[in-house]
Amino acid sequence: MYDLIIIGSGPAGLSAAVYGRRAGLDLLVIEAKPMSGGQILNTYEVDNYLGLPGMNGFDLGMKFKEHADVAGAAFQTASVRAIRDEGPVKAVETADGTRYEAKALILATGAEHSPLGVPGEEEYKGKGVSYCATCDGAFFKGKDVAVVGGGDVAAEDAVYLARMCRKVYLIHRRDSLRAAGSLQEKLKSCGNVEILWSRTVQSIYGGGQVEGVKLVRAAGKKGAALLAADADTTLAAADGSRADSGEQTEDLAVDGVFIAVGMRPDTEAFRDAVACDGQGYIIAGEDCVTGTDGIFAAGDVRTKQVRQIITAAADGACAVAAAERYLAGLK
Amino acid sequence: MYDLIIIGSGPAGLSAAVYGRRAGLDLLVIEAKPMSGGQILNTYEVDNYLGLPGMNGFDLGMKFKEHADVAGAAFQTASVRAIRDEGPVKAVETADGTRYEAKALILATGAEHSPLGVPGEEEYKGKGVSYCATCDGAFFKGKDVAVVGGGDVAAEDAVYLARMCRKVYLIHRRDSLRAAGSLQEKLKSCGNVEILWSRTVQSIYGGGQVEGVKLVRAAGKKGAALLAADADTTLAAADGSRADSGEQTEDLAVDGVFIAVGMRPDTEAFRDAVACDGQGYIIAGEDCVTGTDGIFAAGDVRTKQVRQIITAAADGACAVAAAERYLAGLK
Repeated sequence: MYDLIIIGSGPAGLSAAVYGRRAGLDLLVIEAKPMSGGQILNTYEVDNYLGLPGMNGFDLGMKFKEHADVAGAAFQTASVRAIRDEGPVKAVETADGTRYEAKALILATGAEHSPLGVPGEEEYKGKGVSYCATCDGAFFKGKDVAVVGGGDVAAEDAVYLARMCRKVYLIHRRDSLRAAGSLQEKLKSCGNVEILWSRTVQSIYGGGQVEGVKLVRAAGKKGAALLAADADTTLAAADGSRADSGEQTEDLAVDGVFIAVGMRPDTEAFRDAVACDGQGYIIAGEDCVTGTDGIFAAGDVRTKQVRQIITAAADGACAVAAAERYLAGLK
Repeated sequence: MYDLIIIGSGPAGLSAAVYGRRAGLDLLVIEAKPMSGGQILNTYEVDNYLGLPGMNGFDLGMKFKEHADVAGAAFQTASVRAIRDEGPVKAVETADGTRYEAKALILATGAEHSPLGVPGEEEYKGKGVSYCATCDGAFFKGKDVAVVGGGDVAAEDAVYLARMCRKVYLIHRRDSLRAAGSLQEKLKSCGNVEILWSRTVQSIYGGGQVEGVKLVRAAGKKGAALLAADADTTLAAADGSRADSGEQTEDLAVDGVFIAVGMRPDTEAFRDAVACDGQGYIIAGEDCVTGTDGIFAAGDVRTKQVRQIITAAADGACAVAAAERYLAGLK
């Protein structure tokens, strides 16, 4: 029986491992993937983790893991199938049927940016394709970029990028945004943001880096009206764009594509043990305390506004502080 | 007129500078001290900032400052006398009478651990004297330490240290603790914690490192009773301990002294512009939003539970996210 099991080993889990070990806790970190580090392993460059500017994401992940190793954390590679709250005992069941026990758990499995699922997306990740304007916007200063999505995050990303990019195209598959009215007003007031309605991205193309996106739109009545209305755009009808299907494709030259079509927290295995919100995030505040005694949530996996490496790492510290209080019999 | 002025340049202020610059904001950082870095500049070793284990505090502060420099932040050395909320304009007045203006402010002046104010304290900082059990406890594994104080933090520190130290003495000037009842129960259940009542620390002594503390206690009725009650302690009456004043001094051999007699947030200059709690901390949650539009609070200076370098740096990111939303006209 461990004092603490940490599930997930991105920045939140690894920071929790460091704080937990320094607090003298006997702990185990369980990670489903063969390597620790989380999302940052696939990040080309991280430039906003204070003290380590201009880091390759993979190298940063390795540094984080080494720190947890130095602190004496034990690691187990296994996929967690379920967790059970048995009062003073918290059980973790992995896919191979093994049962681990601890007095407390920290859930730090993170969240994934939903992919668009189009050709070129995977290929150009870190080469012009990004899922985080706050993280990567500064790399596109003075350049032209596209944001894909229609919700608050997409609109906020467009507003954010408008301050540093030459031109921002917001590509949305519908003819209205889900984003809050105030955000839509703000978007309109940005001189360099253009909304391309009723379009979907068919593919992302380029050479060594992204050079553009191929868009498709329905040629229905509304689409046609919108087409006429934005005749000032820089869209060029691509070869063979007017297919019999009524679809037409267009090429939009951009240096970057920011995909903002949602996030998916990795909480399937936890749903029976902790309360989650409608999107699947574990409901927990800054103190990382969930609705279940002795189970804590740290990093992107919990309800929070700012999902960054530094905020995830901070959660690791807060979750251990809360776990310590719980283990000490305090509330 | 700047987009943003950040007051203070510890981890919170410097992280805010990095995030603010990456968001394309025209910003100024105002710092009262000749060097940026905040409290960590005086920290001997920092071992819990994820990714940078075993750092000298000064070097870590330099790394943080360099990151903000690389990001293009402008710095001004000046002591802020007052801030004024003039609606869309936030004014900052410095001691030399200069007035700076910005659309938004981030207050990140931190908090100081109150000193005991005894001989040896300053001399042995980082050589056995610490103000943070979470930060430094791990350096005293298997050793004997003293915690000075009687509040929740002192009691929590003693419980925390009991897990890794051989023996923990909790030194309190009164004959009862202010700490919560549950904490007192927990203290009693720790086999290696001993409370030394009604004593004050007269001095901290040692060679290259702390070797002990000299204690004084009143020889009044209660003191005498307590003296008899804890005859099993390892206290040795020091030379000349029974002075005519009725005081007696004792030497307590310890390897470390954790001082937990309170913190003092640096918010004097802000009191008219933002709401603070009874202890002077600016009232703000995880989103760093204060009660005053356009003024944000980041790091140790705000109401929060876990005051660590990593949580301060996270606040920098959250405060800029909130400031951006404010600057974009969003709530």
